[in-house]
Amino acid sequence: MGTEDKKTSSLCRLTVIFFIGFVIGWCARPTINHGDASKSFLHDFLDEMQAENIKHHLRKFTRLPHLAGSQQNLDLAKQIRDEWMEFGLDSVELVPYDVLLSYPNKTNPNYISIVDHLGTEIFNTSLAEPVPEGYEDVTDIVPPYSAFSAKGQPEDELVYVNYGRTEDFFKLERELGINCSGKIVIARYGKIFRGNKVKNAMLAGAKGIVLFSDPADYCADGVEPYPDGWNLPGGGAQRGNVLNLNGAGDPLTPGYPAKEYTYRSSLEDAVGLPKIPVHPIGYHDAVHLLQHMGGPHPPDNWKGALNISYRIGPGFTDGLNQNKVRMNIHTNNQVTRIYNVIGWIRGAVEPDRYVILGGHRDAWVFGGIDPVSGAAVVHESVRAAGKLMKKGWRPRRTLIFASWDAEEFGLLGSTEWAEDHARVLQERAVAYINADSAIEGMYTLRVDCTPSLHTLVYDITKKVSSPEEGEEGMTLYQSWHKRDNSTERDAPWISKLGSGSDFEAYFIRLGIASGRARYTKNRKTERYSSYPVYHSVYETYEIVERFYDPSFRRLEAVARVRGGLIFSLADSPVLPLDCVEYAMSLTKYANSIYQLALKHPAAMQQHSVSFDSLFFAVENFTVVARDFHQRLDQLDTSNALAVRMVNDQLMYLERAFTDPLGLPGRPFYRHIIFAPSSHNKYAGESFPGIYDALFDIENAVDWQKAWDEVKRQISIAAFTVNAAAETLKPVVS
Amino acid sequence: MGTEDKKTSSLCRLTVIFFIGFVIGWCARPTINHGDASKSFLHDFLDEMQAENIKHHLRKFTRLPHLAGSQQNLDLAKQIRDEWMEFGLDSVELVPYDVLLSYPNKTNPNYISIVDHLGTEIFNTSLAEPVPEGYEDVTDIVPPYSAFSAKGQPEDELVYVNYGRTEDFFKLERELGINCSGKIVIARYGKIFRGNKVKNAMLAGAKGIVLFSDPADYCADGVEPYPDGWNLPGGGAQRGNVLNLNGAGDPLTPGYPAKEYTYRSSLEDAVGLPKIPVHPIGYHDAVHLLQHMGGPHPPDNWKGALNISYRIGPGFTDGLNQNKVRMNIHTNNQVTRIYNVIGWIRGAVEPDRYVILGGHRDAWVFGGIDPVSGAAVVHESVRAAGKLMKKGWRPRRTLIFASWDAEEFGLLGSTEWAEDHARVLQERAVAYINADSAIEGMYTLRVDCTPSLHTLVYDITKKVSSPEEGEEGMTLYQSWHKRDNSTERDAPWISKLGSGSDFEAYFIRLGIASGRARYTKNRKTERYSSYPVYHSVYETYEIVERFYDPSFRRLEAVARVRGGLIFSLADSPVLPLDCVEYAMSLTKYANSIYQLALKHPAAMQQHSVSFDSLFFAVENFTVVARDFHQRLDQLDTSNALAVRMVNDQLMYLERAFTDPLGLPGRPFYRHIIFAPSSHNKYAGESFPGIYDALFDIENAVDWQKAWDEVKRQISIAAFTVNAAAETLKPVVS
Repeated sequence: MGTEDKKTSSLCRLTVIFFIGFVIGWCARPTINHGDASKSFLHDFLDEMQAENIKHHLRKFTRLPHLAGSQQNLDLAKQIRDEWMEFGLDSVELVPYDVLLSYPNKTNPNYISIVDHLGTEIFNTSLAEPVPEGYEDVTDIVPPYSAFSAKGQPEDELVYVNYGRTEDFFKLERELGINCSGKIVIARYGKIFRGNKVKNAMLAGAKGIVLFSDPADYCADGVEPYPDGWNLPGGGAQRGNVLNLNGAGDPLTPGYPAKEYTYRSSLEDAVGLPKIPVHPIGYHDAVHLLQHMGGPHPPDNWKGALNISYRIGPGFTDGLNQNKVRMNIHTNNQVTRIYNVIGWIRGAVEPDRYVILGGHRDAWVFGGIDPVSGAAVVHESVRAAGKLMKKGWRPRRTLIFASWDAEEFGLLGSTEWAEDHARVLQERAVAYINADSAIEGMYTLRVDCTPSLHTLVYDITKKVSSPEEGEEGMTLYQSWHKRDNSTERDAPWISKLGSGSDFEAYFIRLGIASGRARYTKNRKTERYSSYPVYHSVYETYEIVERFYDPSFRRLEAVARVRGGLIFSLADSPVLPLDCVEYAMSLTKYANSIYQLALKHPAAMQQHSVSFDSLFFAVENFTVVARDFHQRLDQLDTSNALAVRMVNDQLMYLERAFTDPLGLPGRPFYRHIIFAPSSHNKYAGESFPGIYDALFDIENAVDWQKAWDEVKRQISIAAFTVNAAAETLKPVVS
Repeated sequence: MGTEDKKTSSLCRLTVIFFIGFVIGWCARPTINHGDASKSFLHDFLDEMQAENIKHHLRKFTRLPHLAGSQQNLDLAKQIRDEWMEFGLDSVELVPYDVLLSYPNKTNPNYISIVDHLGTEIFNTSLAEPVPEGYEDVTDIVPPYSAFSAKGQPEDELVYVNYGRTEDFFKLERELGINCSGKIVIARYGKIFRGNKVKNAMLAGAKGIVLFSDPADYCADGVEPYPDGWNLPGGGAQRGNVLNLNGAGDPLTPGYPAKEYTYRSSLEDAVGLPKIPVHPIGYHDAVHLLQHMGGPHPPDNWKGALNISYRIGPGFTDGLNQNKVRMNIHTNNQVTRIYNVIGWIRGAVEPDRYVILGGHRDAWVFGGIDPVSGAAVVHESVRAAGKLMKKGWRPRRTLIFASWDAEEFGLLGSTEWAEDHARVLQERAVAYINADSAIEGMYTLRVDCTPSLHTLVYDITKKVSSPEEGEEGMTLYQSWHKRDNSTERDAPWISKLGSGSDFEAYFIRLGIASGRARYTKNRKTERYSSYPVYHSVYETYEIVERFYDPSFRRLEAVARVRGGLIFSLADSPVLPLDCVEYAMSLTKYANSIYQLALKHPAAMQQHSVSFDSLFFAVENFTVVARDFHQRLDQLDTSNALAVRMVNDQLMYLERAFTDPLGLPGRPFYRHIIFAPSSHNKYAGESFPGIYDALFDIENAVDWQKAWDEVKRQISIAAFTVNAAAETLKPVVS
């Protein structure tokens, strides 16, 4: 080797050594980004959730009734707390609140009578549902009642009001000339939230309202009543609260958590309590009230499956023309302690970012479907997460699991906890996934969520197998897509969030991106309301095991969707939220509300009503959202602060659609894009401020004022969309 | 050299090379923490701000009137924009809003008359102030008027109501038996915000109100009227708006920015407009109205410096007993375009964290003190920041500089911008430092700020020299401490924030940590109100240059305090906010409101009113705040995400004290700990919800209801303090 060679070799060696030193130095330096390490765990997590376990959880949690406020439901809370700790959560706590609940008087039962002209009760509705086989020895089954009904024994003629919808009362009063003032009304269940029926009855001046399940709405064709099938038996009836809370939570502590020290308003000042007696009955009892009604028969589309005329009472009935109807309601409101179970897994990288999976635990009776099919799924998700933690996984962000109490009494447990922790949730919550009933039909998946979650929902369902027999090898996405394609594009149908479950405070009040998923019926062909045995004693373990999901693979699929959502939201370095999807939805909603307004072309012109500002705002949002995602593609994901900044923008987008001033008359509904419909709490309305301003505007007392309100609401909507767009722009002007 | 030696030497060499490689590799790896590098720049920044420059800015910006909505004020906005760009800001923009302003009718002047029994005006107040020397040729000096006064020409007897405070009207009505209903009232300026006087007059049923400057309130002892001294001349009068906005901003667009597309309410539905004529006069004119009043003389402490009886009018006056007073008010409300100037310096490390220095630009006339003494200081801060940027400095966080418009018309420019950007500000704003008038006296520093800024204020003032002659070598802190020690501890006195300047929307509505600093009079010995020439034409450059601050070293000191605050807030890696100071203040406020309630021991007992929950909450907050700062001492400041997390906790603490439901009847006052007093907008009230519930409670119509409201407010306050404490706890339960 010559000297030159030696020198070269030596130089090479030094270079190599330097390089090794450089690389080791580079790598030894600690960095921030721990997020990617756990990506591969998603697959493990989904696989870990198994049908057999869910079946086991469902069986275990449905043996006894567990009504909110009962000892059984506290016992169940403790059991869940203990099991979640065993599964491996970092911490689990019971969080109590003292809220207003409502129970029947045990010694003075509620019922409805037909009374003759002497005041004698010649027919009484049943005091309880026939108990299903195997549950005969169970005590503490609460009979069907309308929680928070006013007490009272009003007696008068009975007027049939169809579903008790706003349009039904309009038809009665405006077209049919039938006045409900001072009467007792009877409405069939279905179509809208029962609380709205009661509110409408009160607005119409009724002094009581009877709610019944008509077979047309609670029996599927060709299906036997339970236990031979999954239809509602004639002796079954639908329990449920009849509040109009509009998101207030505990009626005595609106806006604030119902702690021991919290000031409670008087019952007179309470939010949302009905001022009239309300009571639910089954169709066997309903027949007795309805078959003797007089007056003209209602329009065909009001008739249901029973023989219905408009009225019962003196002068209207055929056979019993001196008879009246009497309600006997003795239900008591009482402040009662409830318990949420809250479990935590501390985030490894961003412990101050929260992803929440929450669903209720309290049930009217056994809760076979509502809520335990959902609670069993949450339980399995917690178990799976704990299993992964034992393998060394820890999510990037903090996971919170919640077992809410008193959902059935007005979403109370979830709302009180949201009120209690509103500040940290607004600062830190990335998303809320709801876990109420996981199944209400046997057809396909149903998802309601905020638009920014659309893409993630599609992605996750592509990673889950179809639970349907004969679809081996097909993904849930494919199965769902095949059964329920969107009318707007070639993808499965996803709907807006309405209300009626525990996401309400998180989404509508706090502006936290939210979603829910469950297995459902065929919404195009199966026209019955909800699922037939809804809120009856027949919601047992067996109805799921025998009819809805014998293999428990449907519930497993739902578990994987809900679990996959929270996993991705908690663990992806960049939040899997899609602002362009939000833009597309806004465009759709703007067009839709504009079309509604266009039904009044003359008034639009006369009052100079323009939607231009809203369309400009939506266009602005669309451009900004696209730009945001383009910048996101260029993001240096190794820069921890840069990632945090875009994640903050993504997280706070949903918050940006809220307005602390709330919607008119509904201060706790603060989301300007979505709210529960003012006419049906279950349904979601887009641009609700504009919608409500336009509603029935042709009958407004003061047209000028009414159209001014439309213009004001358009202005608020346009501003809110622009303001939300601003949050996605580069953070410095 | 032997072989071993050679080997050793070679090994050494390799080791050295490896080490060099390692070090270069270590250092080459990019890291996140850029914060410390610029620490040394604070000293440079403070030094860069110089008296001579401030003098120059003040001179330049006070040559012409620049009333909000005028061409001159737009010209000034453009000039400031251009100069800020030249100074080196990253971007500067003019941001327009179209808000309701109010101007006198140019062809139909406002004045007050004494009219005889024939209706002849036998005395008229002057239409303008005598213009100071040197300004005789200036056009567009708006005459003294009460902005947003109703139009009208009410004529009646005149009743003197002292300062027009709530307690003054109580005394008149309850003790003296004097009814103001249907009368014109005359109140002296001072003690409280003029809008509150007008509101009180309306509540008392008055049909007009005259406001005058009494020498007792607007002249200092032994001082000559301007131009020979700095007292108010007899022909001077105080302009000012007489709104009761309660933080709403533009009266036509409450809650939303007044953009072109924004819906505007009708004038009838506008927020805060007085329904009666209002007009201000000087003491030369006031003497004419007052000297002929009849009725008994008022109590000694009502007399002021003029000869005052209670009334003027038929039956009450001595010499002119058929005379009445007539107001002639023709002021017009009109929607007018205003312009904020907003300048940005992008943060190097956390561009999505904002520190704001804002003050108004619009002036009633020349604005020598209000606001240009403050605007000149902002201008100098911008210049100094630009200078540092040219030396390579860039703050860790984003700095925003604002020159607000239409502050004098109800804080409109600042409030509209806050409404426009509420979402990004709530997400991103660390602090807001206000920059209104920088001087109102010649004695020492005055600071009003949120408790978490106390420590930083003390720290900064220790880095600034005393501007006082004979105090060379003394710090501003020492000079201030010597002159105005706190009654509670051995440190200079710092007060709560009230309102009356542009921080209002940022602090009270949005919950952004805020503060203000200015040079002031001796609050213990100098009893005149504000400063004598306040809002008169005599607020010139010369009054500052000749009397208030001939060396401009006081303004320089104020510039360094304001500048030092924003510098530290923008550049410190860990935010310099002190939660323990907040805890101490909360303790003080809780004790204070409890003492107030204790004035009603019997009622407290009868209605079971307890402050325990509030005291427990404050104790809880105190423990949590101490723990937080202990953890902060252990913080690994090299961990960018860990630093960000605690900074988020610090930043959001102030936000946590706000409640979207707002205070009763004041939806835009959302801070539960601080609000402008309901009886004097200028003053800050702590626990305002409880305070207002207790106010005059002995005269409540329904005692039960009144004490229930006290209990409700205690509950809200206790919850809010607990909720704020929660934000400082470790982020995972």
